[in-house]
Amino acid sequence: MSLFPYQQLYSFTKSIFLQIGSNETNAEIATKALLAADLRGVDSHGIARLTGYVRLWEAARVNANPDIKVVYETPSTAVVDGDKGLGLVVAPAAMKVAIEKARQVGTGWVSVKNSNHFGIAGYHAMMALEYDMIGIAMTNASALVAPTFSKERLLGTNPIAVAIPAGNEQPFVADFATTTAANGKLEILQRKNSPAPTGWVQTNEGLPSTDANELKKGGALLPLGGDKEHGSHKGYMLGSIVDIFSAVLSGANYGPWVPPFPAYVPMPENMPGEGIGHFFGAMRIDAFRPAADFKMHMDNWISRFKNAMPVKGFEKVIIPGGPEREVEKERMANGIELLQPVISDLGELADKFGLKRI
Amino acid sequence: MSLFPYQQLYSFTKSIFLQIGSNETNAEIATKALLAADLRGVDSHGIARLTGYVRLWEAARVNANPDIKVVYETPSTAVVDGDKGLGLVVAPAAMKVAIEKARQVGTGWVSVKNSNHFGIAGYHAMMALEYDMIGIAMTNASALVAPTFSKERLLGTNPIAVAIPAGNEQPFVADFATTTAANGKLEILQRKNSPAPTGWVQTNEGLPSTDANELKKGGALLPLGGDKEHGSHKGYMLGSIVDIFSAVLSGANYGPWVPPFPAYVPMPENMPGEGIGHFFGAMRIDAFRPAADFKMHMDNWISRFKNAMPVKGFEKVIIPGGPEREVEKERMANGIELLQPVISDLGELADKFGLKRI
Repeated sequence: MSLFPYQQLYSFTKSIFLQIGSNETNAEIATKALLAADLRGVDSHGIARLTGYVRLWEAARVNANPDIKVVYETPSTAVVDGDKGLGLVVAPAAMKVAIEKARQVGTGWVSVKNSNHFGIAGYHAMMALEYDMIGIAMTNASALVAPTFSKERLLGTNPIAVAIPAGNEQPFVADFATTTAANGKLEILQRKNSPAPTGWVQTNEGLPSTDANELKKGGALLPLGGDKEHGSHKGYMLGSIVDIFSAVLSGANYGPWVPPFPAYVPMPENMPGEGIGHFFGAMRIDAFRPAADFKMHMDNWISRFKNAMPVKGFEKVIIPGGPEREVEKERMANGIELLQPVISDLGELADKFGLKRI
Repeated sequence: MSLFPYQQLYSFTKSIFLQIGSNETNAEIATKALLAADLRGVDSHGIARLTGYVRLWEAARVNANPDIKVVYETPSTAVVDGDKGLGLVVAPAAMKVAIEKARQVGTGWVSVKNSNHFGIAGYHAMMALEYDMIGIAMTNASALVAPTFSKERLLGTNPIAVAIPAGNEQPFVADFATTTAANGKLEILQRKNSPAPTGWVQTNEGLPSTDANELKKGGALLPLGGDKEHGSHKGYMLGSIVDIFSAVLSGANYGPWVPPFPAYVPMPENMPGEGIGHFFGAMRIDAFRPAADFKMHMDNWISRFKNAMPVKGFEKVIIPGGPEREVEKERMANGIELLQPVISDLGELADKFGLKRI
């Protein structure tokens, strides 16, 4: 485990995107989006995946300089074709379209097809904040999750992010997979050889399991709730809504047909759409009430929740986005820790392109 | 337990709304919205609450003939002031505004203040279906739910409903509280003197409990997920988003300040807004792609999920909205079962207004 300054990881990552053919602008956009995960503590979605993105490019599954286009629109909506681009580049472009539409008519809603993995949803949702807008981002992903009562995996971890501006308080930023636990959390347990809590995974027959390696044996992640008695049908509904908004609205692949992230996994057969789908929203606060009024009440909301009486043993009630902001501050100041396997991976990547190892 | 034809309950309920001063149109709108709960099997939110609505009227907390107004708007958004009206009347009016805006600019988004309880969210979301639109409805409610790590109740069960049209298949209709279990499910266990599953409630000190009567002792419902290890912070985020969209955007009360449904419970002190808040959305399918394309893929989505291999012991994977539609068909044909305490309550209501008992 070693600490790396953000700037060093930034330069390295950008040089890799340049190597696979991204132009200067796209390389910077992709780097910022990818490293936002490392800065915010979502280590599974950041630079640890850089090798995975390169492999997708080698397999000709992503296009480093996509021609991203609005292919269908109304004053408040659009469908964006990502031209097989890196989701890290397509998503910010689509979010910009949503923001511009919100500027014009109050809100903007953009469904995206023909894209790829976009890093963390929260990063894209947060783009709206500086415009005094609420930002929404979601994406589908390859199927790892079994709907309630299903043996089969039919949904991705399909995250939802919602970023809401405040006044003196920091913004509210929710960003969560619609499963009990994100796949990244399971990977941590696999590395430690620890069991998984109940309600995280099931076996390939759909039976309860606490084996963190269940996915490798054909098992599945479980929707938020874990089982029916604990509301897993609600997690299944949420994941389904993300899938439909992201892909059935846009013309991307959905359900079990969403392309996998690992380039060695074959593409599903009979794919009904193009690439991966995302969905973005932007709502101007002052399309509902004067921004100053909203922010005053948002501050009041946050301060009331922050100051709720905590359960014994816990320090305080957490406002969504708070912990990630702390991690970002700390890592920006002190550097980002990378695990040895990630450092080795990045070393091989450097060698492949004749670049200096980090 | 007795069975009552829908039409009989309809006439009775309408006559009660007329008695508290609703005009003919509003009485019909409110009756349809209220009884949609009984038809769809959400017995806790239907005619069983009629007495509760009358008590709110007696306490001058609801207005039977509100002057419902758009008080702020842009092409795709509006804030509606419900004028203290029955939510059963305010919600359909606000949903109509959302639908009309969607017709004009692709989508419509309406945040509502100064309203009251609106019955089941799904009913309002489903209004969009006949216009080939996706409908969204949510509402906040008085605080029964403790955020993760909080002893205090700060959120309502804050449901979310999303209705999505299909082609040959029936529409996808998700409608769920953002808690592990809705309060109505807990009430069923109380009546049976049964314990609650883990993860549904906590004690007034925030400790895990399986006592179905915990709420009466100052305990709280738990957000979807139950505890942190099982993702309760995600349920807490969802409930918060519903609260903020419904009330901070509109100027209604939020968090612990949302007015209670039982008229004997005093109003919270220092309320920051007006009444209860709702949030509605309508998205024209053909604001994204031709409706026929969307419906074809939606049918494909539904049929793939419906035909997923079920876990042993379960018949099939359920498409959201399916079971409720079955109940509705059955109850429309054979009548609606009411429990004896509900029949007695309605009898007293009839006596109060000199109407014939059902």
